[in-house]
Amino acid sequence: MRAADLVEPFPTIGIDDDAMDAARLMAEQRLVGVIVMDPDGRPHAILPGSQLLRMVVPPYIQADLALARVVDERHADLMCATLAGKRVRDVLPDEKISLAVVEPDATAMEIAALMTQSHTPLVAVLDGDRYVGAITASGLFRRLLAGTA
Amino acid sequence: MRAADLVEPFPTIGIDDDAMDAARLMAEQRLVGVIVMDPDGRPHAILPGSQLLRMVVPPYIQADLALARVVDERHADLMCATLAGKRVRDVLPDEKISLAVVEPDATAMEIAALMTQSHTPLVAVLDGDRYVGAITASGLFRRLLAGTA
Repeated sequence: MRAADLVEPFPTIGIDDDAMDAARLMAEQRLVGVIVMDPDGRPHAILPGSQLLRMVVPPYIQADLALARVVDERHADLMCATLAGKRVRDVLPDEKISLAVVEPDATAMEIAALMTQSHTPLVAVLDGDRYVGAITASGLFRRLLAGTA
Repeated sequence: MRAADLVEPFPTIGIDDDAMDAARLMAEQRLVGVIVMDPDGRPHAILPGSQLLRMVVPPYIQADLALARVVDERHADLMCATLAGKRVRDVLPDEKISLAVVEPDATAMEIAALMTQSHTPLVAVLDGDRYVGAITASGLFRRLLAGTA
């Protein structure tokens, strides 16, 4: 079983796209994170939902969580408004979360080992320079368990 | 907007359940991880898929990733067999990944701040001692974006 057999479509967002579109993508497709693509169409990093949420929590609340409890509800409803006008590159973490990349002929064991080492349930598949899709830990289990059934 | 309005069903697994069932749950429901429950029915920890994969990658491959490339394909097909007979508690990481917990009256801002601080896109909702479900970062975005639409 090789990466080419395991790969599935996985949504991406451009590094210069609107940060609000990244939030929409995660919301609509129930994603834990999205793959951020370089302007040249290669995977650049992972943007986790928890990182994007950091942008909608004001610094004074991050400094004192107790304040989150007393914040005006109307303010909370406007939380996502702070994403407007920001690009994806503006909301990426300072410490880049790299995305593991494999070629289509990578073995299932290789992919599992990569996910284990990177503590990330996502590996992108590149055929040369072309992004083909991604393999998730849950997708890998789905295929591995089908083999043992 | 409060936790009680935001909570959704989220699957759990018992700490003494079969580890293979945890893999099946992630596979079938396309989860990045599952919530592990104590025998008394309270959330104990998060079990990420990448951690469960660690169990199916032999130590000699973890030590030398290059070996993953040459491993016999038939072996790879049997990867999940190593989970058989193990319980969830046997596959939890040494360093417990705690699950943030909120009461039903927690505000959206409080939940966002908790996810931001814990770097986890998942918060469990407990009504007293009773597990009600969970809130995900993507679910939170879905509701917050609906408010700004």
